[in-house]
Amino acid sequence: MRRDGVDAVIIPGTDPHQSEYISDHWKVREWVSGFTGSNGTAVITLNEAALWTDSRYFLQAEQQLEGSGFVMHCENGPNADTKEEWLEQVLPDGGVVAIDGTLFSAVAVSEMEQMCFNMGFQLATDFAPADEVWADRPARPQGKAFVHELQYAGESVESKLDRVIGIVESAGDEAIFVSSLDDIAWVLNLRGSDVDFTPVLVSYLFVSRKETVLFVDNEKLTDEVKAHLKSCGVKVKDYDAALRYLKDVKESVSVLVDPRQVSDTYASAIATKRFAANPIPHLKGVKNAVQIEGYRKAMERDGVALVRTFMWVEKMAPTGTITEVDVANKAIEERSKMPNYVEESFGMIAGYKEHGAIVHYEAEPETASTLQGEGLLLIDTGAQYLDGTTDITRTISLGNPTAEEKHDYTLVLKGHLALGRAMFPEGTRGVQLDVLARQFLWSECKTFFHGTGHGVGHFLGVHEGPQSIRMNENPVTLVPGMVTSNEPGLYLSGKYGIRIENCILTVDAYQTADFGNFMKFEDLTLFPYDTNLIDLSMMSAQELAQVNAYHKMVRERLTPHLTSEEAAWLAEKTKEI
Amino acid sequence: MRRDGVDAVIIPGTDPHQSEYISDHWKVREWVSGFTGSNGTAVITLNEAALWTDSRYFLQAEQQLEGSGFVMHCENGPNADTKEEWLEQVLPDGGVVAIDGTLFSAVAVSEMEQMCFNMGFQLATDFAPADEVWADRPARPQGKAFVHELQYAGESVESKLDRVIGIVESAGDEAIFVSSLDDIAWVLNLRGSDVDFTPVLVSYLFVSRKETVLFVDNEKLTDEVKAHLKSCGVKVKDYDAALRYLKDVKESVSVLVDPRQVSDTYASAIATKRFAANPIPHLKGVKNAVQIEGYRKAMERDGVALVRTFMWVEKMAPTGTITEVDVANKAIEERSKMPNYVEESFGMIAGYKEHGAIVHYEAEPETASTLQGEGLLLIDTGAQYLDGTTDITRTISLGNPTAEEKHDYTLVLKGHLALGRAMFPEGTRGVQLDVLARQFLWSECKTFFHGTGHGVGHFLGVHEGPQSIRMNENPVTLVPGMVTSNEPGLYLSGKYGIRIENCILTVDAYQTADFGNFMKFEDLTLFPYDTNLIDLSMMSAQELAQVNAYHKMVRERLTPHLTSEEAAWLAEKTKEI
Repeated sequence: MRRDGVDAVIIPGTDPHQSEYISDHWKVREWVSGFTGSNGTAVITLNEAALWTDSRYFLQAEQQLEGSGFVMHCENGPNADTKEEWLEQVLPDGGVVAIDGTLFSAVAVSEMEQMCFNMGFQLATDFAPADEVWADRPARPQGKAFVHELQYAGESVESKLDRVIGIVESAGDEAIFVSSLDDIAWVLNLRGSDVDFTPVLVSYLFVSRKETVLFVDNEKLTDEVKAHLKSCGVKVKDYDAALRYLKDVKESVSVLVDPRQVSDTYASAIATKRFAANPIPHLKGVKNAVQIEGYRKAMERDGVALVRTFMWVEKMAPTGTITEVDVANKAIEERSKMPNYVEESFGMIAGYKEHGAIVHYEAEPETASTLQGEGLLLIDTGAQYLDGTTDITRTISLGNPTAEEKHDYTLVLKGHLALGRAMFPEGTRGVQLDVLARQFLWSECKTFFHGTGHGVGHFLGVHEGPQSIRMNENPVTLVPGMVTSNEPGLYLSGKYGIRIENCILTVDAYQTADFGNFMKFEDLTLFPYDTNLIDLSMMSAQELAQVNAYHKMVRERLTPHLTSEEAAWLAEKTKEI
Repeated sequence: MRRDGVDAVIIPGTDPHQSEYISDHWKVREWVSGFTGSNGTAVITLNEAALWTDSRYFLQAEQQLEGSGFVMHCENGPNADTKEEWLEQVLPDGGVVAIDGTLFSAVAVSEMEQMCFNMGFQLATDFAPADEVWADRPARPQGKAFVHELQYAGESVESKLDRVIGIVESAGDEAIFVSSLDDIAWVLNLRGSDVDFTPVLVSYLFVSRKETVLFVDNEKLTDEVKAHLKSCGVKVKDYDAALRYLKDVKESVSVLVDPRQVSDTYASAIATKRFAANPIPHLKGVKNAVQIEGYRKAMERDGVALVRTFMWVEKMAPTGTITEVDVANKAIEERSKMPNYVEESFGMIAGYKEHGAIVHYEAEPETASTLQGEGLLLIDTGAQYLDGTTDITRTISLGNPTAEEKHDYTLVLKGHLALGRAMFPEGTRGVQLDVLARQFLWSECKTFFHGTGHGVGHFLGVHEGPQSIRMNENPVTLVPGMVTSNEPGLYLSGKYGIRIENCILTVDAYQTADFGNFMKFEDLTLFPYDTNLIDLSMMSAQELAQVNAYHKMVRERLTPHLTSEEAAWLAEKTKEI
């Protein structure tokens, strides 16, 4: 910093592709601070070091930062302050704030420029000393890419490229530059193994009618992948060649660049860019018939693996010999036996009793609770199958549920059911439906502080856009083919957490002459709710019928794949209430 | 137009204050075209004349434009086209499009400039030939202003001015220029009688710490009003002096101007304006304790007048001697006997049978239906009292309701009840609650195409902002003191219309330690639902209890003001179900 005349450096927790899960190569913030949470930004001056994170991670950050010299700051909550306020206090007038412009989106850098201008600082966007100072920095990930076969993807690369270029051209552009890894994987029917949980390959993509170029490290590409790309007319260049390529784009070519996705360094390289939203997330978000059929089959396999996992948990918990971590391992063991299983889609949240109230809890061997034959256990888990991604949460009682536990479980369940059976007209946005999942909690002055639903990828990110079901406005309307989670919850700090989550598919319901077209949801997830936790006196006849119909479907779809012992267990779990 | 080199003139249906109800002086579009609907824009070229309106008015516009030379165009629906497309076809390159800049907001003119630029036209914003060509143009309205006494307003002008200036200054401005008539009336505790239904006075207001000036025709001001204004430190200048005054504002004074409210002509006159949202609607939207108590009393008087009106309708309908128009006149007759009654807050919608399905139906003597002892009658009506504005819709059966009528009525009622009993956390926006009123209709693939709720003024506009309960995003959150309508409906073209509307007050409900503060609604409106139209088999125990509790409140609050015959009628209407 002294050599380069830098007074402060800001280090984010992302990679050049704004990924949710990042590879070790880009864990610079983690290396420099020791803090491993998914959301955190380090700011280092010549004399001080600070780290900002949100309330999910306050406890963890304080523990992990101890002795590091870093001081934790709160992004939200009563003690929140901002990096801007802090920099204004500690930096000299005219100080130089430096970042690595490949790690911040064009929008983020634009906001930062404004901030620096307002405070009289200078912003340098080319400060990337990690290679120099991080002696044993891991190399860029070199996982092998593989073809996502048409039998799973349901649409050829040619067709996808044609649709993408069609939209780009209809907006008056000639090309699009894409840096989001799941979008690239979707367009090219390619998958990779560079990061945990999401089967993407680190790469950039340039698409135009004239040529489509994938920028990727050659080591990733098998002969099969090379042949696949060649047959689709996709050229391959080195990952590091992308920046030069963008600088060489002819001035006559207007390139669509999403300023919230593409890094400032890469966006700035394109002389004739036009900032606009990337259209691929919407194309990718609407699943085709082959993908939908894949989800259905994957959900059956996942349901069978979960029957075996939950049976085991029920049997073992009263013995006092298994922990939260063992539950996660058991699920992986059972899923691994299933055809098409690749990996988990995120680290399992298995939260027993008060751990369940920590929304993003991930059990560690040293601190995991040992299960007993009582109390609530919240399990949020999902898997990547070649033919679909799963994401499910179930909360179960390990014995003798209290009236309060049953009451709260039933409140959450009623909201989950209300959203699940919603019928809604064409043009409806998620924000309009969100209250259906919250209304019963709200009526008792309770709520949950996370979204009700996120998009779910198809053998891609378990969290994807463009739709959502949240309290925040999101202008994207729900359309047939979208897969979204339905996951209301309730968290009582120090006591327990409850969440119930299914993946739901938006489908056409009815066309009416007077009131337009209506849509509804179809449950994709196949696993019973815990009927022991339902307070039947709080349930309407409609709600009981809905649970029974769902349980009947679960039973009918899973039983053919179960042993007689497992089938008996499932029959008991899904018996009519 | 030829003399001034104008190729096309665009004439809107508004006044310089963007009012909902406008005085005859500004009904230029109505004069030139003959079309009287509330939404319509005339465009006249040297050879052609066209008028755009929305689907509510297609039928009416076609009839009223017949023989006028105007051709009707549709703003929405399957045959929609735009003024832009039409102008592009009929105007020569470089043609001059002219408007009266006092009749369009600064935002509207800015959009029009962009449109003209794109199409190669010129825009002239000073074309106002109405005085010249409209021989018997009515004068500007000269209704007398009067003071809205503190006993009704509940807050002094000094206090309001102080709050307004405080907000203006905290945003870095020194003054605000206001053209919205209800905002001016609210700030100054003044009312007027310049237009139907809304007791405002045509005026402009300039507010700063140094001086506050009301621009108004002197003829409106009584000695009492002059003394009131003087005592509040408000200077008075002529209405026509406002433009000059704005041009003379010193360059050092930053003036807040709402570009969606203030006309282009007036906004352009201010050299040092800063465009931002007018803060007064939010201040005005949150009612104080005196206003709330006023609403409660006004609702009692309105309820009593409506008991008498509906009793009369029930008695007379089977005789086949009264029409929809007579219902409106009867309501005015009964309300006129009530203390503090000033006028109706909008023209009554009394829609019998198929007329009820026309959302903005207003009965005319020539075409009004004669009521009979059967069928549904929708009555949407409201009044201006000195202490509050009312807005209520009831749908009643005049005899022998069909199963379908009862089914549909109950669907609408269930939505109305669900919204009315909603509990919701601080920070909730109307869009989040809207589905509560629609969910039961949606579950049968039915809906309604208007908003669920609008703000209601206090002895001011029956429609006001800033909050709403609609499918569209509106970032304004509901806060205690806001009065909003709750009015779901269902309209079956050619058969009947159903709408049920109460005014609801947002109030604090509970503060919780874990989940923040919660709010709820309180019903202000006092009049029974039609229990003959309720399909009891569709109602939950909770819904029945809610109806019974509401009816008990209506009975207890109204009965002390009724004759024994009226009390008996109300007791029957509100008996437990």
